[in-house]
Amino acid sequence: MAITVVGSVAFDSIETPAGKRERCLGGAATHFSLAASFFTDVRVIAVVGEDFGKRQEAVFQARKIDTQGIEHTAGKSFFWEGSYLENLNEAKTHATELNVFATFSPKIPDVYRDSQFLFLANIDPVLQRRVREQMPDVKLVAGDTMNYWINDHRPALLEVLKGLDILLINDTETRILGGNSNLVKAAKAVQAMGPKTLVVKHGEYGATLFQSASAESESTFRVPALLLEEIVDPTGAGDSFAGGFFGYLASLPEITPAAYRRAMFYGSVMGSYACERFGTERIQALSREEIEVRFNLLHELTHLA
Amino acid sequence: MAITVVGSVAFDSIETPAGKRERCLGGAATHFSLAASFFTDVRVIAVVGEDFGKRQEAVFQARKIDTQGIEHTAGKSFFWEGSYLENLNEAKTHATELNVFATFSPKIPDVYRDSQFLFLANIDPVLQRRVREQMPDVKLVAGDTMNYWINDHRPALLEVLKGLDILLINDTETRILGGNSNLVKAAKAVQAMGPKTLVVKHGEYGATLFQSASAESESTFRVPALLLEEIVDPTGAGDSFAGGFFGYLASLPEITPAAYRRAMFYGSVMGSYACERFGTERIQALSREEIEVRFNLLHELTHLA
Repeated sequence: MAITVVGSVAFDSIETPAGKRERCLGGAATHFSLAASFFTDVRVIAVVGEDFGKRQEAVFQARKIDTQGIEHTAGKSFFWEGSYLENLNEAKTHATELNVFATFSPKIPDVYRDSQFLFLANIDPVLQRRVREQMPDVKLVAGDTMNYWINDHRPALLEVLKGLDILLINDTETRILGGNSNLVKAAKAVQAMGPKTLVVKHGEYGATLFQSASAESESTFRVPALLLEEIVDPTGAGDSFAGGFFGYLASLPEITPAAYRRAMFYGSVMGSYACERFGTERIQALSREEIEVRFNLLHELTHLA
Repeated sequence: MAITVVGSVAFDSIETPAGKRERCLGGAATHFSLAASFFTDVRVIAVVGEDFGKRQEAVFQARKIDTQGIEHTAGKSFFWEGSYLENLNEAKTHATELNVFATFSPKIPDVYRDSQFLFLANIDPVLQRRVREQMPDVKLVAGDTMNYWINDHRPALLEVLKGLDILLINDTETRILGGNSNLVKAAKAVQAMGPKTLVVKHGEYGATLFQSASAESESTFRVPALLLEEIVDPTGAGDSFAGGFFGYLASLPEITPAAYRRAMFYGSVMGSYACERFGTERIQALSREEIEVRFNLLHELTHLA
C-alpha cells in the first residue's frame, strides 16, 4: 500500500575521506523515497526552488515515485553542507539554508489521500504535525527527528510524538529525548510519549527495535550492521534505513511481530547500500535482487545456523 | 578439556556511577577463570603477594579452579584503580601497580601440562610468550592484549601473535594494531599477523567474529550485546566474554564453525552478567541455568523467527 512522505528535498555539499560532492541531490524525503520505492508506491510532499530541475525530477521518475506533492516555488531549494572528515559516524554541519522551506505550508494532493502509510521525515515538527492532521485516517504513522528539534523545539515535537506509531532516531537522540543515559530506560521513556515502536539506530553498530504492544507485552530485537570495506558517504543512511524498514512494512497484507524483525533487516540493508557511494548514487543504481542478496548476507552474519 | 590461563590476579579499586569498591578481587585471569569454569576445568598461572589470603583463594575454590600455578611471594599483589564516571564503555585508570608481577617468571606446574587449551590473558607479551613456549603442544591458543602493549611493546606483541589461533581485542585496539580506520580492513591486517580467528569486542554494541580458514574461505559473525537496564561495573566484562567464549569451545569434543558462533553467544552472555554487580560478585553468584536463560534471550533478541 502507498506511503506518503513529507520532508526535505534538498541539495547537499558533502566532504568525506573518500572525496567531495557539490550540490548533489539529497534531503531526508529524497533518501527515504528512493529506498522505500523498492518495496511499495511512494508519494512525496515537499517544496523545491528554481534550482530543482528536470535532472533531479528524473531521479524520482526512474523509481516511479509520485512527485505531484512537490511544490515548485520561487527561490532556492533547501541546502545542506557537511563533512565527515574526523568521524564517519557523525556529520559536522557547515551550513544549513532552509530557503523555500522557511515559508512552506504543506498541502496534500487529493490523489495522495488514500495512502494508508505516512512517514514524517526529519523537518520542523510544526510541519510534521500539520501533515499528520490532514491525514487522520492512515493505518500506520512513522517519523524521524533530530537533536535540534529535541533540544530547542520540544513542546512541538512532543505533540508530534503523540500521533506516531513508530519513531526512528539514533542513540544520542534517544538518550536526550528520554532523559536517561541507559538506553533501555531512555527507550521506555520515549515510548511513553506516544510511539509504541521505537527504532534506535546505532550507526556502524546496527539498530535496536523496542516494542511495547501493552504494559505486559514488550519485545526487543537487535540487528548489527553489515560490514563494509569502504564507507564512501554516510549521508542519508538513516533515511534509507527508514525507507527500507517502513517500505517493507507497507508492502505487506498483514503486519505481524515477525514482519517488524524482517523490516529491521531491510532497513539495515538499505542503510548499508546508501553508504557505498555519494548521496543517492548507489540507491539509484540498485536492483531488487541486490537487496535480497544482502538480506541473506545479514541472515548469515547474525544467525547461529 | 582443561584450559590453562596466564594473566593477572589482582586487587581493584573501582568507582562507577553505581558506587565504589575498594580492593575487590580482580585481574584478567580471575575474571576469565570464573567465567570459563562454568564450561570446563580451568588452571591458573599467576603470582600474588601476601595480601592474597584465604578469602580470595576461596573464590577460586568455590568454582573448582585449579590454583596450584598461582605463586605466592613476598610483597603486594597487582593493584589497579579506575573509574567509569563519564563513560561506562571505557575505564579511566588512576593507578596501576605491578608489584609482584614486576619480577614474575611464570612456571607451569606438571599437572597443568596435559591442558589442550591455553589462554594468554592481558599481561606483558614477554610473559605471554614464555608461557606459550612452555606449552608447545596445546590444541588451541587464544589471547588478549591492550593499547599499552600495542603502542609501546609492538615487537614483543607481534611475536606472541604469531603463536595465537584466536585474538580477542576491542574496536580501537583492532584499528590501531591493524593500522586502518576501517574495521574490516584492520581485521584482515591483524589476521595476517597470526591469529586466523579475531574477535572484536564493541562494548555495549556486542562483538564481531572474523575468521579466515584459508585465503578463499572467510566468514564473519556479529552478535549484538544483551540489553541491560542497569550497568553497575563493566570491569572484567571483556575477560568474562573471553572466558565464556573459550570455555565453551574447550568443552566441545569437536570445534566446528557453528561452535564458534555459539561461543560468541556464550561470551556475550558472560560479559553481560559480569556488568551487573561490582568485580566478580555477579559471576560468583551465577548458575549454569541462568547462563542458558540468557543464551535463549540472546537468540530471541537476534533471530528473525
